[in-house]
Amino acid sequence: MRSVEICRKFTKHAPGSALIKQGDTWVLCTASVEEKAPPFLRGTGTGWVTAEYAMLPSATLTRKERDIKKLRQDGRGVEIGRLIGRALRASVDLAKLGERTLTIDCDVLQADGGTRCASITGGMVALEDAVSALLAAGTLAENPIRRRVAAVSVGICAGVPTLDLDYAHDSTADVDLNVVMTSDGRFVELQGTAEHEPFTDAQLDALRALAKEGCAALFKAQAQALGRDA
Amino acid sequence: MRSVEICRKFTKHAPGSALIKQGDTWVLCTASVEEKAPPFLRGTGTGWVTAEYAMLPSATLTRKERDIKKLRQDGRGVEIGRLIGRALRASVDLAKLGERTLTIDCDVLQADGGTRCASITGGMVALEDAVSALLAAGTLAENPIRRRVAAVSVGICAGVPTLDLDYAHDSTADVDLNVVMTSDGRFVELQGTAEHEPFTDAQLDALRALAKEGCAALFKAQAQALGRDA
Amino acid sequence: MRSVEICRKFTKHAPGSALIKQGDTWVLCTASVEEKAPPFLRGTGTGWVTAEYAMLPSATLTRKERDIKKLRQDGRGVEIGRLIGRALRASVDLAKLGERTLTIDCDVLQADGGTRCASITGGMVALEDAVSALLAAGTLAENPIRRRVAAVSVGICAGVPTLDLDYAHDSTADVDLNVVMTSDGRFVELQGTAEHEPFTDAQLDALRALAKEGCAALFKAQAQALGRDA
Amino acid sequence: MRSVEICRKFTKHAPGSALIKQGDTWVLCTASVEEKAPPFLRGTGTGWVTAEYAMLPSATLTRKERDIKKLRQDGRGVEIGRLIGRALRASVDLAKLGERTLTIDCDVLQADGGTRCASITGGMVALEDAVSALLAAGTLAENPIRRRVAAVSVGICAGVPTLDLDYAHDSTADVDLNVVMTSDGRFVELQGTAEHEPFTDAQLDALRALAKEGCAALFKAQAQALGRDA
Amino acid sequence: MRSVEICRKFTKHAPGSALIKQGDTWVLCTASVEEKAPPFLRGTGTGWVTAEYAMLPSATLTRKERDIKKLRQDGRGVEIGRLIGRALRASVDLAKLGERTLTIDCDVLQADGGTRCASITGGMVALEDAVSALLAAGTLAENPIRRRVAAVSVGICAGVPTLDLDYAHDSTADVDLNVVMTSDGRFVELQGTAEHEPFTDAQLDALRALAKEGCAALFKAQAQALGRDA
Amino acid sequence: MRSVEICRKFTKHAPGSALIKQGDTWVLCTASVEEKAPPFLRGTGTGWVTAEYAMLPSATLTRKERDIKKLRQDGRGVEIGRLIGRALRASVDLAKLGERTLTIDCDVLQADGGTRCASITGGMVALEDAVSALLAAGTLAENPIRRRVAAVSVGICAGVPTLDLDYAHDSTADVDLNVVMTSDGRFVELQGTAEHEPFTDAQLDALRALAKEGCAALFKAQAQALGRDA
Repeated sequence: MRSVEICRKFTKHAPGSALIKQGDTWVLCTASVEEKAPPFLRGTGTGWVTAEYAMLPSATLTRKERDIKKLRQDGRGVEIGRLIGRALRASVDLAKLGERTLTIDCDVLQADGGTRCASITGGMVALEDAVSALLAAGTLAENPIRRRVAAVSVGICAGVPTLDLDYAHDSTADVDLNVVMTSDGRFVELQGTAEHEPFTDAQLDALRALAKEGCAALFKAQAQALGRDA
Repeated sequence: MRSVEICRKFTKHAPGSALIKQGDTWVLCTASVEEKAPPFLRGTGTGWVTAEYAMLPSATLTRKERDIKKLRQDGRGVEIGRLIGRALRASVDLAKLGERTLTIDCDVLQADGGTRCASITGGMVALEDAVSALLAAGTLAENPIRRRVAAVSVGICAGVPTLDLDYAHDSTADVDLNVVMTSDGRFVELQGTAEHEPFTDAQLDALRALAKEGCAALFKAQAQALGRDA
Repeated sequence: MRSVEICRKFTKHAPGSALIKQGDTWVLCTASVEEKAPPFLRGTGTGWVTAEYAMLPSATLTRKERDIKKLRQDGRGVEIGRLIGRALRASVDLAKLGERTLTIDCDVLQADGGTRCASITGGMVALEDAVSALLAAGTLAENPIRRRVAAVSVGICAGVPTLDLDYAHDSTADVDLNVVMTSDGRFVELQGTAEHEPFTDAQLDALRALAKEGCAALFKAQAQALGRDA
Repeated sequence: MRSVEICRKFTKHAPGSALIKQGDTWVLCTASVEEKAPPFLRGTGTGWVTAEYAMLPSATLTRKERDIKKLRQDGRGVEIGRLIGRALRASVDLAKLGERTLTIDCDVLQADGGTRCASITGGMVALEDAVSALLAAGTLAENPIRRRVAAVSVGICAGVPTLDLDYAHDSTADVDLNVVMTSDGRFVELQGTAEHEPFTDAQLDALRALAKEGCAALFKAQAQALGRDA
Repeated sequence: MRSVEICRKFTKHAPGSALIKQGDTWVLCTASVEEKAPPFLRGTGTGWVTAEYAMLPSATLTRKERDIKKLRQDGRGVEIGRLIGRALRASVDLAKLGERTLTIDCDVLQADGGTRCASITGGMVALEDAVSALLAAGTLAENPIRRRVAAVSVGICAGVPTLDLDYAHDSTADVDLNVVMTSDGRFVELQGTAEHEPFTDAQLDALRALAKEGCAALFKAQAQALGRDA
Repeated sequence: MRSVEICRKFTKHAPGSALIKQGDTWVLCTASVEEKAPPFLRGTGTGWVTAEYAMLPSATLTRKERDIKKLRQDGRGVEIGRLIGRALRASVDLAKLGERTLTIDCDVLQADGGTRCASITGGMVALEDAVSALLAAGTLAENPIRRRVAAVSVGICAGVPTLDLDYAHDSTADVDLNVVMTSDGRFVELQGTAEHEPFTDAQLDALRALAKEGCAALFKAQAQALGRDA
């Protein structure tokens, strides 16, 4: 597993901000608060957590054109943003959050595989800091965070179950499984794909075992960055 | 499990066309052939399979505005189209397909849960018919289809593992797992989500067992519609 | 004239729904109700009827790319949607409808000429069913439908006035005239085009006579589907 | 009928340019030449005539927002542009034009009813000047213009058939009929609409007679501006 | 300096309207009033002046495609519209204007260099007429206009400081400086660009002196058109 | 003047990359190379330098919605991107660059005033590194860089000419002047704006003197980061 560093409070304007460096994958995760809920929740007393994921044009080996130039959000980015949002919502009691929206922006400064998982792991830290700010300001009376989540990608590379795929591994893996977990070993999201050769029950079992190991390390990195256990 | 009916050759212009009715979920799946590959494959001799998923405005309980009115493809639709494409690509040897593109259009006429899975199951039939047309026309000399895929959604509803969720079940399930399988019991794609309560290894095991049952029934429906086994 | 079949209540969610099959032209027409009027009518007590027309990608001989992929609604579709809307508004007393909007969605499942006219004829059935639902629910106290409308295309093909053009006729016709009529023989809309050779008064007279015949048959098909005369 | 003034060669860059003033309706019509045909005609030796119609924001009583601000071309503008294009194509032998495109831009500087018809009448003059320039330059050896077209709107206002509707008449008319004619009294396009009360054969006959009168006056204005008969 | 002609009250619907002809550069400037301020000013009692700049497709030597066809406002047009808005805002006391918006539309009918400056000079006249209409109607009690502004482009062409660049000069100039001034000789906006050879203090001094001369002539043309001094 | 730090080679994929920190304004500037020129330069042997400017959503005090969500590039961003491009083009001999495109991406990670100027100063470093890479690889035989440019904002705050405005100063300044200079004291671009009170010749003179001081410091920072003088 690649080394993980979470630089908390990286920028100053957003109430939560963390730069996560997992090997050469760097994602700036920030959490902003808006004092209203999306339309479908108005009047319910319940809040929302949503995420947006994007890459800077220079984050990849070949420059990636900005979405706005094509007037179309990159399909991969849409899919990943939705995954991050679902994963982080699982960590928050939305009723306790009240009618406000937390937006987690995950902007990839440099990509080397595993950006979606790093976004979830780093986004959790930004989210927790933004919630702390709301608690400190007295806006929230009770902590809405129910649990921490972290995510890691595992895959089968040249027949071997492998943890935390970088780009070189990811682009040649037979199976790619992204696993979002809680610190008590349960699953929040599981996304496994085999475009080439389908995978077996046994392979899935091996991969999820490996993912648990990886997430354990990530929960430690989160705790260290935040200065406290979940 | 809901009754499944696959009306093959439903419309006349596309070389492959199937209306799949799974309970009150109806999806019109068609397969079209374009005699060129996407830019990233030009000159490689390799082809591509891609999918698009959309709902008619009247397919849902409340009328859903058309994407073009918002100038933005619905994020859920983007995510589902990408899933269908990945799933169906696993059934085709793209090198044998040659430099052409198969587009599988999945248009939901009526939605009652499980539309993405029905799109994959029905899209497989349309795809196979389009390939048969290419073989019959002599455009293809060798069958590029490697295996059939089918998909079913399973979930935990009120604590009970449940097969083939309709909208009433889906919208209240604790866990929602979409499983794309091959007829030999392997996995092509696995997407499990728990927005509320994370799920355990044991629950995952129960759900994948259930999914195997469901897919077995779907492989039978495909074979019956196509008049032959895979 | 081609055989006409109107399958009423084809789908279950929209209050009005009809699949019209006119030869190999199939259009799914649905009518939805929104309990508010468009901005320019707010506060007037008057409602609105509008229509949207689109083709599924696989409806035509060659696959037609989705509008959303080009971020632009097809010009022909815009023009046809406006025609259908004007035609169906003529059938409704908008003041009696009250401040609500009826949207008639016309989605072409299979195209073989005459889709705009089939959309009007089938849309009338869907509209009437949606109004019946509002009357049955007590939302409306008085029936706002003033008259039924139906539409047919006529044209001059190889010098011969011809009724109900299919695609083969339509694409070679010298004049193409779309006629929207009421059951008492009056005109709601008349759209005649001669891109090649202009047409004479006498030709126009011959065509509108033919259109009356065609519409008479369509009013019968509507009455049969709805189980009652206008 | 309102007075008509056609100021030929109004601007200097486009090879054809005419400002038509029909009462208080002012439309700047210009014709530009591009030395290639649209994709669907490449390799056929045949050219194309197309039109675009737009209003300046200040052309109407209330300022009209620019299309680009809404990222959507106004549906009415799309419909009118298509009508102008069809009408002017009828005046040109596209095979004689060769593989080039004439674009007729019709920009309304001030609107007071009848802008689509004025665009056709004025656009004909711009088109003819652009063709003259191609003939003078030797680009074209033979004149591709087959006939002149002109257009007028007629309607039934307070029960009276009325010629050349201004905005005050147009907005209250029961029937609105736009008629595009050739100078020998034949029809190129006919668009009649009755959103309120359907119209009879007799009314249609009265309106088309009136339209012939109006077009005769417009053909005179075109001949005077161009300094020659058709 | 080229001859300048300002045709005031050119069109009839907008409360302010001026066609400015500076040599072969013609810009139609109109000023419209909306009785509400933009969102960021609501509740402040303060109004806003904004501008939009566009070229008709036929205004340039080669036909320029409409922005809406590309779904993207031309970057140059965005930049110029923002400049015009800033320049004209400097002429108005926004607090005295009250919570309303003046929109100055600058549509180039024919371009021959200096269109942005002509838009400002002509837009000032349209703006003043719109304000006069508000005063005459009693909507405004006090005149919010603080000063007139005018603008001219100057540049260094073949080493010579040159006033009021037409297209031939502009496209070959080493330095291009657009200067917006007040009639008391102060600057509102200064935009100097040297894409090729940087410019010196001395050159800047020579250019701004020249610009003062040019603006003096433009203030006279404005006064003549409006029939009164500032 | 605020402290300036230029972290060269900040990310690894782009051939040029610099994070410039000017006080609390942080901009990540990267330079990418594409081996083709834009269409208007094809076949001329001449290259192009272009720039794109954007802010991360969390860069500002209040979260700024992404352009892609509004399907419209922020007007201010368009204007600034064009300025950066013009400024950096002045530093390169485009003929010596050959038919390739250098794209300078300036992404603001944290904004506290002066982002456009910091983008130019930092972009110069990224550009020079990308050119060095082309020289090292032998793609370029001769160095196309003619001079370094740097930029600073100056303004009049509470009557006092002030250097290097941060957000607090910028938002209350009477005049805001952005100055792009070369190291020999000449001007590449000058943009001065007075939305409130116009400025005099004397004020302009004071501001440009101050800008020279500021740019001198920035040229030192560039030289230090690059390890060599211009």
